[in-house]
Amino acid sequence: MKIKDIGERALIQRISGLLSGADDIVVGAGEDDCAVIDTGGDDYLLVTTDMLHRKTDFPLQMTGRQIGWMSVAVNLSDLASKGARPIGVVMAMGIPPDTEVEFIEEIVKGMDECASKFGTRIVGGDTDAHDELTLVGTALGMVKKEHLIRRSGARPGDLVCVTGHPGTAGAALFALDKKITVSQKILNALFEPVPRIYEGMALSESLSVTSIMDISDGLALSLHDMSRAGGVGFKIYESRLPVLPDVKRLLKEREMLEAAVFAGGDFELLFTVAPEKLDKARKACPLTVIGEVIENGVFIERAGRVEELKARGYEHFS
Amino acid sequence: MKIKDIGERALIQRISGLLSGADDIVVGAGEDDCAVIDTGGDDYLLVTTDMLHRKTDFPLQMTGRQIGWMSVAVNLSDLASKGARPIGVVMAMGIPPDTEVEFIEEIVKGMDECASKFGTRIVGGDTDAHDELTLVGTALGMVKKEHLIRRSGARPGDLVCVTGHPGTAGAALFALDKKITVSQKILNALFEPVPRIYEGMALSESLSVTSIMDISDGLALSLHDMSRAGGVGFKIYESRLPVLPDVKRLLKEREMLEAAVFAGGDFELLFTVAPEKLDKARKACPLTVIGEVIENGVFIERAGRVEELKARGYEHFS
Repeated sequence: MKIKDIGERALIQRISGLLSGADDIVVGAGEDDCAVIDTGGDDYLLVTTDMLHRKTDFPLQMTGRQIGWMSVAVNLSDLASKGARPIGVVMAMGIPPDTEVEFIEEIVKGMDECASKFGTRIVGGDTDAHDELTLVGTALGMVKKEHLIRRSGARPGDLVCVTGHPGTAGAALFALDKKITVSQKILNALFEPVPRIYEGMALSESLSVTSIMDISDGLALSLHDMSRAGGVGFKIYESRLPVLPDVKRLLKEREMLEAAVFAGGDFELLFTVAPEKLDKARKACPLTVIGEVIENGVFIERAGRVEELKARGYEHFS
Repeated sequence: MKIKDIGERALIQRISGLLSGADDIVVGAGEDDCAVIDTGGDDYLLVTTDMLHRKTDFPLQMTGRQIGWMSVAVNLSDLASKGARPIGVVMAMGIPPDTEVEFIEEIVKGMDECASKFGTRIVGGDTDAHDELTLVGTALGMVKKEHLIRRSGARPGDLVCVTGHPGTAGAALFALDKKITVSQKILNALFEPVPRIYEGMALSESLSVTSIMDISDGLALSLHDMSRAGGVGFKIYESRLPVLPDVKRLLKEREMLEAAVFAGGDFELLFTVAPEKLDKARKACPLTVIGEVIENGVFIERAGRVEELKARGYEHFS
């Protein structure tokens, strides 16, 4: 049986099943957005890694600076989704030998800019001759033990919330695909995504959130991941999705649902809050309530009808 | 100008020059085998990353298990060279979609085996569809602040020491290239290298070592790296290189020098010790004295003649 026959999520489950655990590993491989290590102090150490490469992750329209920014941002978004304060990023770079030195320098400047913007640094790395430009970042973070929030933890009756405007990155992808000119704001959602580091830290410190993850693989897949992790279900409302007016103008209704729910690429946080703590969460960061936690299943209400929301979105090997 | 025109070490210097520093980054990119972060406790946090891929790093004779072992060992060797105790490894895996699932499972078992052998675990990772099998590990470690040893720190008059038997991995490469059958012991030096985690920890705790790094890129390049880092020189003696008798039988004199000094692939530690502390270092781990620290230059004495030792060895993009 080949990897393409089983897909990414099944592969990760098989790999995770082969790995040994240990008492100091609070969250291990495949369980959450980051691994969580107990090093004995007041804080947990969090670590996450992401592999990006030219063909899949860096459309030709992206500048070197944006490629570098993205390679750091994708890792910081995982830290953000656990409320962690970033403390360092290392970057392994696979580079075709005939690449211009200046292009790599632009990429490195973009990495440094993104790390600096969120209070951390590129602290180390590796370079390697590779056929395809391949960037593998690993981000480290820390969070007070009592502030760690998991993908699990949602309870029926909790409110489902998101930061920002899901669908913007998907709209940019759509526009690139159809060669439609769109605003820089929409393109930047795809090319220079902003990891929600400060929002994640504020939410975790607010002690108002019961579960959280990021939606870079799309809202639908993330809801299914949280459903599996927490043993609960979700119902969201299409009418409440905080899609940007610019995006609404650009896309037909079906396309908008596709962008906001399935396309992925938005580095926003998806989280659940007990209704009586919503004010606390709102004080932590701007948010939109898009639905509620239910007993089981993942559903969306559209034009008065409740439909099952399929676990479809961005997956490798498919 | 292209990357291949400047080579790996110059590229790393240029990249490092573009990165911002910070007070809590004790050792940053390009300065040592690991980055060192001060998280405020009694220990430093160390992090290192290495990118390996099929064409360059995994000869076809390697099993899946050995590929997995190697991908972890190469990172642990960097931790070993700073005396760190490993606390976790994450692994990003770029996998061609038509790879057999069983082969990936063998690789993962090899990773788990190597991590477990040295007291740590694979705590997380990422999977990605990639044209070429590409494994990027990142290892985290901790070391007491007073036990951290750098590449710099050697003083003229110090003794130059190595662990193990440099040249064994080079001999295996030679045998594979010439299709000569050699012992499993020699092949394993190349295919299942043993990171010197316990030796590194014992050496750093012995407080006898003035500078240290690993020699996986070859003894010659490592001596030049330590020379640049510490502002000192080195003189080593060919006759003192602890080459295995099996390797001596296999190789002619010139080939032996090539294997032991230039070929790389040995995951041994190169370190310097003040003469009066040699007994302390010997109690920490088996070692061989191969030369001494001098004011400047890097030299080797061969058959009574002192020659300059060129900065030649394993470099990407060349």
